[in-house]
Amino acid sequence: MNGHSVRGGDKRDRILQAAERVFASKGFYGAKVSDIAHVAGVADGTIYLYFRSKDDLLISLFEAQMDRVLAELRGAVADGEDATEKLRRFIAAYLTMVEANRHAAEVITIELRQSAKFMKEYRNPKFAEFLKTLAAVIQEGQQQGRLRAEVPAPIAARTLFGALDELALMWVTSRGERFDIRKVADWLGDVVLKGLELQRRQA
Amino acid sequence: MNGHSVRGGDKRDRILQAAERVFASKGFYGAKVSDIAHVAGVADGTIYLYFRSKDDLLISLFEAQMDRVLAELRGAVADGEDATEKLRRFIAAYLTMVEANRHAAEVITIELRQSAKFMKEYRNPKFAEFLKTLAAVIQEGQQQGRLRAEVPAPIAARTLFGALDELALMWVTSRGERFDIRKVADWLGDVVLKGLELQRRQA
Repeated sequence: MNGHSVRGGDKRDRILQAAERVFASKGFYGAKVSDIAHVAGVADGTIYLYFRSKDDLLISLFEAQMDRVLAELRGAVADGEDATEKLRRFIAAYLTMVEANRHAAEVITIELRQSAKFMKEYRNPKFAEFLKTLAAVIQEGQQQGRLRAEVPAPIAARTLFGALDELALMWVTSRGERFDIRKVADWLGDVVLKGLELQRRQA
Repeated sequence: MNGHSVRGGDKRDRILQAAERVFASKGFYGAKVSDIAHVAGVADGTIYLYFRSKDDLLISLFEAQMDRVLAELRGAVADGEDATEKLRRFIAAYLTMVEANRHAAEVITIELRQSAKFMKEYRNPKFAEFLKTLAAVIQEGQQQGRLRAEVPAPIAARTLFGALDELALMWVTSRGERFDIRKVADWLGDVVLKGLELQRRQA
């Protein structure tokens, strides 16, 4: 992904990769479809063969990123032995993914919320799926008597997502040297698990 | 604040109260300055004597709400005996304030991020002040050896803010019966403190 233009891959993917870069550097409002076409190395009109509008491009980028998030979450869930281990793995996977996909994280934490279409009309099935999967892990821990159950799992899941999302936003917007997001992930994993656990694990 | 129009108080306050209601019901993009003038009981042109634009109205609303948040935070800091007590009081005060100022919370969690001017140009000194005050409480606890110190206090403060902000967003957008935000505040206070504390308090 170095250099000015995006080559290789199928056209739709090239346009998405170009859009991610252009939105991250110029912002959603500042980006023109012609800028994206230029970086993707396609004619302006070609973009409209794949995407209806700039909002549609942004939402498609978000969906591609949510697919990655969901894959990471499902991987963490599959590998973890119990609910607390699954949560810890997921927190680490989420923040590592932000680090590895900085442009995508920028687009999602900053630009996406400026799309009126996204905020008002888009039903966001992938985000709902993500929250449902995360809540299921927490509920599993609650049912096993391992995690606090005063608050329903979907609320606990949203709270954890809020913490992760704000950390991602802080990391992508920090000027100068960025903080060590993996160290923060370890800390957050400890804080969340120590805070939520009803009994400490026997080693 | 019942009934259709806003009466009493000075004109600037009336316009701000009207804007809060109109933004919450029609959204920032959907709201017209003339709607706000109608609810405030002033002529359309009067609004421009106090505010330069619709974006300026939104930012002024945000600043009024941040003044309330800062006052609550400073109250919690003044009343609490130690850092953990201060944090617990602040979490409760923040979520109680969301409950008591639903329209303001809606405007801030949903509408504000759609203002390109707010996201791009506004330097947001009050939010910076809020985060600084919250970080100072956490740092106090770290220096006393009461709270985990692996992560700098400003990062811990942002993480806590993210959790609170997402809970506020979930609460204001929930359909049907809203969850008990005070109960959630107690839970979050417990989770954060148990998670962050290095040693349990002696009762």
